[in-house]
Amino acid sequence: MAGLEPRKYPVERLSEFATRVFRHFGVPPDDARQASDVLAAADLRGIDSHGIARLTAYSDLLSEGLINPRANVQVIRELPGIATVDGDNGLGLVVGPKANAIAMEKADAVGAGWVAVRNTNHFGIAGYYPIQALARGLIGWAMTNSTSFVSPLWGAQRMLGTNPIAVAFPCKKEPPVVIDLATSAVPYGKIEIALRAGKPIPEGWAIDREGRSATRPEQVIDGGALLPLGGDREHGGHKGYCLAALVDILSGVLSGANWGPFTPPFALRIEVSEEKVGVGIGHFFGALRIDGFMDPDEFRGRMDDWVRTFRATKPAAGTPGVVIPGDPERKAEAERRVSGIPLGPVVVNDLREIAKRTGIPFE
Amino acid sequence: MAGLEPRKYPVERLSEFATRVFRHFGVPPDDARQASDVLAAADLRGIDSHGIARLTAYSDLLSEGLINPRANVQVIRELPGIATVDGDNGLGLVVGPKANAIAMEKADAVGAGWVAVRNTNHFGIAGYYPIQALARGLIGWAMTNSTSFVSPLWGAQRMLGTNPIAVAFPCKKEPPVVIDLATSAVPYGKIEIALRAGKPIPEGWAIDREGRSATRPEQVIDGGALLPLGGDREHGGHKGYCLAALVDILSGVLSGANWGPFTPPFALRIEVSEEKVGVGIGHFFGALRIDGFMDPDEFRGRMDDWVRTFRATKPAAGTPGVVIPGDPERKAEAERRVSGIPLGPVVVNDLREIAKRTGIPFE
Repeated sequence: MAGLEPRKYPVERLSEFATRVFRHFGVPPDDARQASDVLAAADLRGIDSHGIARLTAYSDLLSEGLINPRANVQVIRELPGIATVDGDNGLGLVVGPKANAIAMEKADAVGAGWVAVRNTNHFGIAGYYPIQALARGLIGWAMTNSTSFVSPLWGAQRMLGTNPIAVAFPCKKEPPVVIDLATSAVPYGKIEIALRAGKPIPEGWAIDREGRSATRPEQVIDGGALLPLGGDREHGGHKGYCLAALVDILSGVLSGANWGPFTPPFALRIEVSEEKVGVGIGHFFGALRIDGFMDPDEFRGRMDDWVRTFRATKPAAGTPGVVIPGDPERKAEAERRVSGIPLGPVVVNDLREIAKRTGIPFE
Repeated sequence: MAGLEPRKYPVERLSEFATRVFRHFGVPPDDARQASDVLAAADLRGIDSHGIARLTAYSDLLSEGLINPRANVQVIRELPGIATVDGDNGLGLVVGPKANAIAMEKADAVGAGWVAVRNTNHFGIAGYYPIQALARGLIGWAMTNSTSFVSPLWGAQRMLGTNPIAVAFPCKKEPPVVIDLATSAVPYGKIEIALRAGKPIPEGWAIDREGRSATRPEQVIDGGALLPLGGDREHGGHKGYCLAALVDILSGVLSGANWGPFTPPFALRIEVSEEKVGVGIGHFFGALRIDGFMDPDEFRGRMDDWVRTFRATKPAAGTPGVVIPGDPERKAEAERRVSGIPLGPVVVNDLREIAKRTGIPFE
């Protein structure tokens, strides 16, 4: 079954293809390059679910006119250190970087810059944004709300997205610390993988439609929900729920976007909530200037010490030992830049389908 | 055994006692009132571990000269929206509110205010600080690092504190949403309670000294550690570790305080790390002006909708249904303002002991 093995593609080739596809749907050249850069970052960093595998969904939304390819991203309210940005229903992959840049400009000006974004769409991997801030010598933050898959603790309904939080800190000689975590116990994809494999799922991941602990993936898919980080009450599920709520309020409520169960779905095939409480989904970006807190060189040296101290933690029996946040993604990137991005047959078929529809050659 | 039942004390009486005790140890009158106000907030909100039960530890540290009663809290570096504050080794209960006020002033001025604090001590409940911001119409944030009890995922050492994150949002007619969570799976106190009760602990709370899952409290106390929120890898323990690291870096590394395993212990009886990588522990405060994002009245109305929507979530079978962050503490406060603060016999004895040492009448 060689046809089921992943095939490897150079990241440049995938980026070129994605850029041309975005352009085909009317996205201006610079924006198309920006959008495919965000997708490439996900593929390079090993977060396959957020890379070119999503090009079909973006293409569908663009071709159906559900995303505006020529969005006019605008600041609609601001003070020196904060702003709300309206994404004009553009690609999150374009709106996100523009709003993040505004947060960074504000941080350059007054030390801190925070930008809430409404009327936007899926922005790719959250970790992309704080990494942009690192390149400008800033501490960067990013959050976004998203399609609801997660129940608040003690609920039996999908009310919150997997709402990620990403923050990055520069080091001196060590690689940067890049934190990027979803606030659910697991991604929804793990439920789908268990379904395809015909395997049970561990307690603490999800619930069925009545809110009881689910151990079979079918129970989750049939009206159940993911649990927030922590799982049940005994293991701190109320904390994961609070974190998901934090992201939802900052990204959705404060910006004027949809929030909670009203957040529009990413893909076309999921039923859209009829009721609207805002426009699009919401993001929240932050940037902090290090030199307003400490000499930047001193800070980076202290970060090196932090990283080395944590790396030297006595390893737990039977484990590879403590990992520094960002290490796995950095290792994936180093490898994939050389050997290419592995794509499974389903993704390759999807991309061939896009090639057929658009006339843009994929292979 | 009536002597083992908790006795109830009016919060005003406890506050008056604590204020006089702080004054006895040389804390100026306003600072003493401030410090006891933070303790009273914990007792009122039902977070007994952080209230007047800690007065003995604070008294011991003050009487041993390990905390400076007349700290000169100073901004040592700043930009319009950010600053680092040196707490001059003062009570965290005094340094915290002063630094938080600086964050709020900066937010008033430019929209966002973020303050890192070094050379400080335990600051009480994290939730106290964003509640202060609410009173000024701001969104407030607080974090602090603390004595290490928690292992990073796949480690077998205490490297991080239970490092809390608190954020609060105002509503219009609904009570405010107050998020206040520790980034460990459980507080260390739960291990001590299991020990006293001779009971096992659930998987996912803690590890033994070799990093293996601990199911008996003795394994944790004897050189083991708490797990971060999420527990093991399968349940997202890497995410809780990332959150604890985030708090440690912002509070400790960025401020010039001690971080990670070097964080000095709160109480006298825990062995002090010989090595220092900074001064005292660290906090991190933030404040955001709502009107730079959205009309504040509109935001508060949207928050009401958020709260009502989440409160109306279909309840999970066998649970009381979804709780809004801050509800349990608000209910405790309403009840305790009327019926008093319940103190167990150990705490009452401790307070009587302080009364004896200081000559300040407790009862």
